[in-house]
Amino acid sequence: MSASHPPSSAPASSAELFAAACGHARRAAVLASVESLLGWDEQTMLPRAGGPHRADQATAMAAIVHGLRTDPAQAERLVALADSSLATAGTPLERTTIRLLKHDADKQARLPVRLVEELARAAVEAQQAWVEARASSDWAALRPHLVRMFALKREQASCQRPDLDPYDALLDDYEPGARWRRLADRFGPLRAAIVDLVRACGNASRRPDDSILTERPYPVEAQRRFVREVASRIGFDFDRGRLDTTEHPFCTTLGPDDCRITTRWNERSLPTALFGVLHEAGHGLYEQGLPREWYGLPPGEAASLGIHESQSRLWENLVGRSQPFWEWCFPLARQAFPAALADVDAERFHGALLAVRPSFIRVEADELTYNLHVMLRFDLERALVHGDLAVDDLPAAWNERFERDFGMRPPDDARGVLQDIHWSAGLIGYFPTYTLGNVFAAQLMEAAHRAVPDLDVQVASGRFTDLLAWLRREVHAAGRTLESEPLVERATGSGVSGDWLVKSLRDRYGPAYGL
Amino acid sequence: MSASHPPSSAPASSAELFAAACGHARRAAVLASVESLLGWDEQTMLPRAGGPHRADQATAMAAIVHGLRTDPAQAERLVALADSSLATAGTPLERTTIRLLKHDADKQARLPVRLVEELARAAVEAQQAWVEARASSDWAALRPHLVRMFALKREQASCQRPDLDPYDALLDDYEPGARWRRLADRFGPLRAAIVDLVRACGNASRRPDDSILTERPYPVEAQRRFVREVASRIGFDFDRGRLDTTEHPFCTTLGPDDCRITTRWNERSLPTALFGVLHEAGHGLYEQGLPREWYGLPPGEAASLGIHESQSRLWENLVGRSQPFWEWCFPLARQAFPAALADVDAERFHGALLAVRPSFIRVEADELTYNLHVMLRFDLERALVHGDLAVDDLPAAWNERFERDFGMRPPDDARGVLQDIHWSAGLIGYFPTYTLGNVFAAQLMEAAHRAVPDLDVQVASGRFTDLLAWLRREVHAAGRTLESEPLVERATGSGVSGDWLVKSLRDRYGPAYGL
Repeated sequence: MSASHPPSSAPASSAELFAAACGHARRAAVLASVESLLGWDEQTMLPRAGGPHRADQATAMAAIVHGLRTDPAQAERLVALADSSLATAGTPLERTTIRLLKHDADKQARLPVRLVEELARAAVEAQQAWVEARASSDWAALRPHLVRMFALKREQASCQRPDLDPYDALLDDYEPGARWRRLADRFGPLRAAIVDLVRACGNASRRPDDSILTERPYPVEAQRRFVREVASRIGFDFDRGRLDTTEHPFCTTLGPDDCRITTRWNERSLPTALFGVLHEAGHGLYEQGLPREWYGLPPGEAASLGIHESQSRLWENLVGRSQPFWEWCFPLARQAFPAALADVDAERFHGALLAVRPSFIRVEADELTYNLHVMLRFDLERALVHGDLAVDDLPAAWNERFERDFGMRPPDDARGVLQDIHWSAGLIGYFPTYTLGNVFAAQLMEAAHRAVPDLDVQVASGRFTDLLAWLRREVHAAGRTLESEPLVERATGSGVSGDWLVKSLRDRYGPAYGL
Repeated sequence: MSASHPPSSAPASSAELFAAACGHARRAAVLASVESLLGWDEQTMLPRAGGPHRADQATAMAAIVHGLRTDPAQAERLVALADSSLATAGTPLERTTIRLLKHDADKQARLPVRLVEELARAAVEAQQAWVEARASSDWAALRPHLVRMFALKREQASCQRPDLDPYDALLDDYEPGARWRRLADRFGPLRAAIVDLVRACGNASRRPDDSILTERPYPVEAQRRFVREVASRIGFDFDRGRLDTTEHPFCTTLGPDDCRITTRWNERSLPTALFGVLHEAGHGLYEQGLPREWYGLPPGEAASLGIHESQSRLWENLVGRSQPFWEWCFPLARQAFPAALADVDAERFHGALLAVRPSFIRVEADELTYNLHVMLRFDLERALVHGDLAVDDLPAAWNERFERDFGMRPPDDARGVLQDIHWSAGLIGYFPTYTLGNVFAAQLMEAAHRAVPDLDVQVASGRFTDLLAWLRREVHAAGRTLESEPLVERATGSGVSGDWLVKSLRDRYGPAYGL
């Protein structure tokens, strides 16, 4: 595991330094991927009693990875590289790699170890408190943990990026280059348009009946075969990945050829697993499309959470809920679930997928109202970080805003401010990437339609290779060499805008509700 | 991950040193258990293309664990502890822990790094060559690898234990305290008795018909439920373990509460999975019975491979192939496999389990001939290590000995000297632990019968708790604090002898063949 140091008698050439720095970063990535295996196994396989030892294993690995990522020898290499000829005259990929490795290392180095440890401890304690608080809808039990967490995150922001607005400093961890003002400007009209559309759907005389999707027999074994076939067909490579069962679905990458997606099953409801798998397979297609030869280095990494989410949402909603997709897929579904679908036709089935029903819980929300849940959280967490809202006033602010957007008031905090784990886990600045993902997805899909004019015809016959090839070329191949907005602009030829999302929603939901 | 060192200004007390040494050893064990997870996942879950990255992960972890195990600070602690009052006046467990930790560290330290690396490289290369050589039955392709491997293992023996006969030095890695002369004295009469019994079975007019076990429909899903229920019933704790599918079944422990067994399935044959799972669950019961509070330290480790194998063989053969077991289990089997067993009764079923059929391949051998395969390998590998046999003469020696014991000659080397991976993997001195396991198992089972007089009645009604409690108390609880022979002698009240195994085989196989 020792880095291949150049002989100390001669100054290291930039090429040698670059190789050593990349080798070190890759070693850290290999060991971080072992951490990921511990996490995947914990969520899918771990025997009930195995938890405490798994925590010991994860802690030991985290310490090793942290040690590698903050290794002073690597920091020295990166300083020397940043001053070397390679940083100015190297290939674009070399220059980007040097810049981003140094950026990450500097950011890490600006965090005092004391704060890293306090954040880790606070997150564990707050998450444990959150489990209890949500179960008993007991806001008071979580309140002090959130007070502490928001204080620590503000401290983290000011250490890590003293040059930025504190909310932007946190946001930058998940969406490099994003700034809250630009997001807020974009989300404002989006929110208004979606609120209008939700109201219009609610008042429409025509309403899709989704009971055929959620109150009929869908045997789990048949679902397993069906969703595996669909995931395969859109391009998820099972030679380089797996599908397993879990409680809270996720996608994780354990190596350049080992991407694992997960789902849960509901034997009375098809959408849970089907759209769950389309979503996670979308993440998986992105991971499988990153440049393998740059594994463990910035050109082989995802651009941002927003771009990641754009890939999952594109396959889940813009492909998976589209009329052409079900032209191809409905006959397969009827074959897989004869008892549920014998008396249903493709049109009725597709209509049922577009049911809109405002509800209190984000993770159960339909495609339309989902963004309202996200924007609410974005506005509230920003107010908390900026000191415009006190943690004590959070539940009231939540309920008031919820009523404004959804026309109903959460009956208790469990169905309101206590429902998500994110803030307890220290994931602040994370929520907006969900809606950013939807915005990016709609704009990318529009561009894909322009690039592949007969895309609908292809999808209607179960061909997804041209769409995937376009995403590979325009999005996946870039890795982390571009920030999300420039990446989307390059791929689509226009500035990022929420208008495409509004158009996509209106185009699909309008007809279903006779609007 | 840093050890809790005592302040350097004052000499460390023995208690502090002991705590630090144990902490270090446990940390190494925790990281070694991460290595085990990588191995388990590789054998059960890894996507087809994930191999190369898995090798990178395993190599990185091996280097980290090796670094911890050869840490000079730990070596210093152990030297100081060996000279401390704790080594003479501590509790028995403290004294044993100090002695064995130092024994292991000294042994490790006596191996030059160059030899460790050469052995690792030779093993990888020889195993790759073996795969090819076996597939094409090409002895010449493996020969040079075995020449090199036996030379390296002789060097390892003389470095690691210059005080011992070289074969004993290797054997000691797997069966601490065992010596080849004692084994050979014990195996001689055992071999003669088994050869006689196999011949008698071959010449008997009565022969069990095992086609009901191996040529009928045993649906895999039904097998899965059935073997899981049986494993649970004998005491394998699925809250602290799992059962998964693999190509080459094994049992591995990923933590004190995370023991994983594996099996393969054959939809036309019940014994493959059933006896495979009873075997691995036997290993698992031992692992689950080791003192958890000593996890990662010698009192929480297995005594030897022979003891481990005694536990798997006891459940597989002495319980699983016994008449009382099937009195309880046969109705369950008939319920699980109606198409296969509707026209079969318990007596015929149990008889079929005792079919004896000499064959060329060890891993397919029946209970009786299995030991002949093992003893052949023990005699040949010993002759190779002692220089009494040249690698060039091995195939001829194999075939000659095989014919003497089995009355038939391997038609090619693939079904002869090339069938096992052990020697290519550097596992020399390992084979005899298989038969030692059978010897220990029979002697332990006899003692268990004395301690639990109505054991057969209990087994016939599906009660295994008294047997397991006896094994827990007499074998599992000791961990590695006793070597295998003293452990068996303490548990059974008599010196180790192969006579119990001969008796057990005669008692069960005699009646089945009308001898």
